[in-house]
Amino acid sequence: MIVDPDLRYRIHDLYAAYAACLDDARYGEWPEFFTEDAWYRVVPRENYDRDLPLSTLSLKGKAMMKDRIYGVESTIFHAPYYQRHLIGLPLIDQHKDGIVKVEANYFVTRTKRDSLAEIYSVGKYLDEITIRDNDLKFARKFCVFDNDIVANSMIYPI
Amino acid sequence: MIVDPDLRYRIHDLYAAYAACLDDARYGEWPEFFTEDAWYRVVPRENYDRDLPLSTLSLKGKAMMKDRIYGVESTIFHAPYYQRHLIGLPLIDQHKDGIVKVEANYFVTRTKRDSLAEIYSVGKYLDEITIRDNDLKFARKFCVFDNDIVANSMIYPI
Amino acid sequence: MIVDPDLRYRIHDLYAAYAACLDDARYGEWPEFFTEDAWYRVVPRENYDRDLPLSTLSLKGKAMMKDRIYGVESTIFHAPYYQRHLIGLPLIDQHKDGIVKVEANYFVTRTKRDSLAEIYSVGKYLDEITIRDNDLKFARKFCVFDNDIVANSMIYPI
Repeated sequence: MIVDPDLRYRIHDLYAAYAACLDDARYGEWPEFFTEDAWYRVVPRENYDRDLPLSTLSLKGKAMMKDRIYGVESTIFHAPYYQRHLIGLPLIDQHKDGIVKVEANYFVTRTKRDSLAEIYSVGKYLDEITIRDNDLKFARKFCVFDNDIVANSMIYPI
Repeated sequence: MIVDPDLRYRIHDLYAAYAACLDDARYGEWPEFFTEDAWYRVVPRENYDRDLPLSTLSLKGKAMMKDRIYGVESTIFHAPYYQRHLIGLPLIDQHKDGIVKVEANYFVTRTKRDSLAEIYSVGKYLDEITIRDNDLKFARKFCVFDNDIVANSMIYPI
Repeated sequence: MIVDPDLRYRIHDLYAAYAACLDDARYGEWPEFFTEDAWYRVVPRENYDRDLPLSTLSLKGKAMMKDRIYGVESTIFHAPYYQRHLIGLPLIDQHKDGIVKVEANYFVTRTKRDSLAEIYSVGKYLDEITIRDNDLKFARKFCVFDNDIVANSMIYPI
């Protein structure tokens, strides 16, 4: 199915806005990119490829996402760092039933205070987007990352 | 305001051309991306967020930009290095008065001769673009970078 | 010549699909992105700029590409690694004769098992694309990379 140009723009904008939200550390707005019962999962590529369920992070539903953000902002003890996302051109697969599947590569850098930037996570998003009332939301967002080792711990969403 | 598709393409092309100009080391062409009285500023995120004026580089007007390039090409003693830009999908905010605000993440690598490439600067462009006589120019370009520490010195524009 | 919007989308999709093919390690599909007599070349920037013929890899025609992939998958002894591509917004130069010239920056990371990701190759694609029977193929793909030093050896295509 040919991708509608207008949808293409809106998907570009969705990913740009998603990156800006996280990179600006506006974490409170992050759950708003998802549907109520969305599944957000960060999973090593090795596990994903073998269909193993173990994930670095798996949040089902917006309530869990808000809880995670509460943790990030209020209870998890961690050294703060900046994130910066670069997201590649998305591969868009538009279905008739209103679900859009999108695949897009990403690089995320981490920059600790008084430090150089370093490559933190690289992988691809495997996403499902729903369109309701002219609004695009992630119904599923899997971040499948190449690097089996995570530098220290992963605090902020990818 | 909905972004006009044609404008969207032209902004994509502007950023691609900007990156190519710098990465091809065609520094003499770089000031031509700006209006006569444009402000080009490279500023650490920490200072930008706190509204502190100190910048790593702040050039007001094309004349200062040309002077900087003269320095880069003729007077600043430095070990040469290659730059390579990757610029993310731009967030475009089109205003009625002919000003377009654009935000876009960037990664720049530096590669010194006989070396591996390294992450040099990561951050976001906060830009204002004017359209005159069907021509897009930067009236303001702020490069807000995450890495408080700059590896050695910053010679070329970002 | 103004780039046709539909062509622009298709070029975006071509690069996204090219990256996905290599990053998913579907190497057998890689030669299908090229015309029968295409030239694929990976060349250091220093050599390219001086017009020197020496390349890190130079494959002329699909048969050589298939042979390379046979080597990659069956005969070259190497420690496996993941690749991940990010490709910048393409600069498109559409000619009347059906040839499209495209320039696009790229970063490729390499991730060895149980390791962090590292910047592996950065450079630009200098490509020529032909359109036949509504199908886009690379007639020429030059990967001009900045880093004179390649970390270990280069096994997979860039």
